[in-house]
Amino acid sequence: MPSGGSRRARPVRSEFGLIRRLQARAAKPDRQVALGIGDDTAVIKTSSTEWTLITTDLLAEGVHFDLATSSYEDIGYRAAIANLSDIAAMGGTPRFMLVSIAIPSTCSTTEIHQLYRGMMQASAPYRVCLVGGDTSASKHGLFLSITLTGVVRPGRALLRSGAKVGDRLYVTGTLGDSRAGLDLLSSRRRRTLPAAHARFLLARHHRPSARIAEGQWLVKQGLAGAAIDLSDGLTGDLRHICEDSDVGAEILGGSLPISAACQAYAAAYRLSPQEIALQGGEDYELLFTVPAGQQARFERLVKKTPFHCTCIGTITPKRSGLRLRTEQGTTSPLPLTSYEHFRRPS
Amino acid sequence: MPSGGSRRARPVRSEFGLIRRLQARAAKPDRQVALGIGDDTAVIKTSSTEWTLITTDLLAEGVHFDLATSSYEDIGYRAAIANLSDIAAMGGTPRFMLVSIAIPSTCSTTEIHQLYRGMMQASAPYRVCLVGGDTSASKHGLFLSITLTGVVRPGRALLRSGAKVGDRLYVTGTLGDSRAGLDLLSSRRRRTLPAAHARFLLARHHRPSARIAEGQWLVKQGLAGAAIDLSDGLTGDLRHICEDSDVGAEILGGSLPISAACQAYAAAYRLSPQEIALQGGEDYELLFTVPAGQQARFERLVKKTPFHCTCIGTITPKRSGLRLRTEQGTTSPLPLTSYEHFRRPS
Repeated sequence: MPSGGSRRARPVRSEFGLIRRLQARAAKPDRQVALGIGDDTAVIKTSSTEWTLITTDLLAEGVHFDLATSSYEDIGYRAAIANLSDIAAMGGTPRFMLVSIAIPSTCSTTEIHQLYRGMMQASAPYRVCLVGGDTSASKHGLFLSITLTGVVRPGRALLRSGAKVGDRLYVTGTLGDSRAGLDLLSSRRRRTLPAAHARFLLARHHRPSARIAEGQWLVKQGLAGAAIDLSDGLTGDLRHICEDSDVGAEILGGSLPISAACQAYAAAYRLSPQEIALQGGEDYELLFTVPAGQQARFERLVKKTPFHCTCIGTITPKRSGLRLRTEQGTTSPLPLTSYEHFRRPS
Repeated sequence: MPSGGSRRARPVRSEFGLIRRLQARAAKPDRQVALGIGDDTAVIKTSSTEWTLITTDLLAEGVHFDLATSSYEDIGYRAAIANLSDIAAMGGTPRFMLVSIAIPSTCSTTEIHQLYRGMMQASAPYRVCLVGGDTSASKHGLFLSITLTGVVRPGRALLRSGAKVGDRLYVTGTLGDSRAGLDLLSSRRRRTLPAAHARFLLARHHRPSARIAEGQWLVKQGLAGAAIDLSDGLTGDLRHICEDSDVGAEILGGSLPISAACQAYAAAYRLSPQEIALQGGEDYELLFTVPAGQQARFERLVKKTPFHCTCIGTITPKRSGLRLRTEQGTTSPLPLTSYEHFRRPS
């Protein structure tokens, strides 16, 4: 290592990819680890009847949440959902939670109580048990770290790496609502949007759902090839599936499930609803693949459930990359623009 | 909840006890949980041959570590040891680690690499496998959250609650070295202490040991009643055992194991070595109890091992509280003074 600061490397925030490689290098093979770093959760071969899933998420004030636009209860709720959604993406059943919080001096016990209440509200439907945690002072800002375990039948977890060329791509629910909700919060836009739409979008941002039942159903039917939860946005998370499965993908722009509220929001502010759906993060819907030969069976089976699943594209050879097909039939590379670039030229 | 800020509660940093109660209330009973919040780790009944231990620790810059006095490698090392030591206190074998880091923009990839290297160095002897984690930007300061799992034979974990009146109290290793090392770092004192002593104390602070082998040996022999690792200091951690076991304790001041280096440090700066040993934190030694009737057998068995264990007192009825017996035979309540009050009247 060079001494002193003269050969100081670039700031790390631009190099999370490097850190992931560093983590992967530090992870030694272990006969009990079915799946280590890189998927939504690790998978540990705990016993012959049950494998354990384990995931952790860290939320930092000013990065993942803003106390000016979110209540402590909402922050706790969303933090729990982020972890529950990782278990959902593996098709697992959540079990045990550990919560660590670094608390600044500006924070009251009432507010920490609210934070816990949010976490517990999100977890309650799944009978998740809080078994541990750590509490610390923080000199700067609130930090929240949740670790969640789950279980899945041996060898049945849904992985990012299971997509095959020809598979159909599906998503649960609707896309872009959370991002539209966040945008309403950080602007004054909601005043000009019908109240019911604004309420819906804000609820989808503050109180997203983890698709636990959908994930478990996919495992039970044995029809899904690959799966991931949409935390980074459709484009970003589809990229993870494609990289891990060594494939490409084509998204049918016209097929993206977009709520009436998100459509109204986009129309009111001259934005492209399709781009919001492609780029918007924290929807916590599931993106998964179904083999083409099983599509008819899948569609038949899903009709008997309360689940809302939409076919949005197809897995293609790797060389095709990630492409978007318009309703007019033209294709183009899937844009990786950020939300800042969503505004249509007027 | 009251709206607005008028009924704002007291700042939370003074109320960690309340938070612990809040956590305990949020933890619902679960048939698979042998032990939830409150001990060094949670204990989960994973299978008929193995139970799972799980613990998490959060370290915040400026609270748990100071970049002016610790290298990134040392910080990583100590963070891993803090978790390994929790597994040691249960008599378990560490297995899987998850690491979450919130990284400020001032931090380089080289430094994060060093942080990981420290964690991996501490974990390597135990073949701990890194299986996951999360990486985030931080607007303010470095935060590190580690979750560690371990295993123990069903029903054999060492708990804080197992101490009985009459049991002998033992500690591994020597006490107070880490605190003396920290004090050397934050002052200019080391310049006047013999170099070998200063090196020893700094090493005990920067590179403490987790007493994994000792904990496993205690489980194997089946002689320990209660156990805890010394992270808060002997007085603080003994209090946890006494509270959880509903007993009191009497410490024999003259019996406390204190290293030659710590003795020299205390002598050089007119401090009480006994008080450093009683109050100094982050020793990561094990404090455990042995039934009086088993003491002779324990002493015989421990002589055959490389382990250094010292009898430092006795478990007494709860009504006696925590007391310190001097070499002159007088007893007084065990002081709860902080390190600031260590200086002998000169």
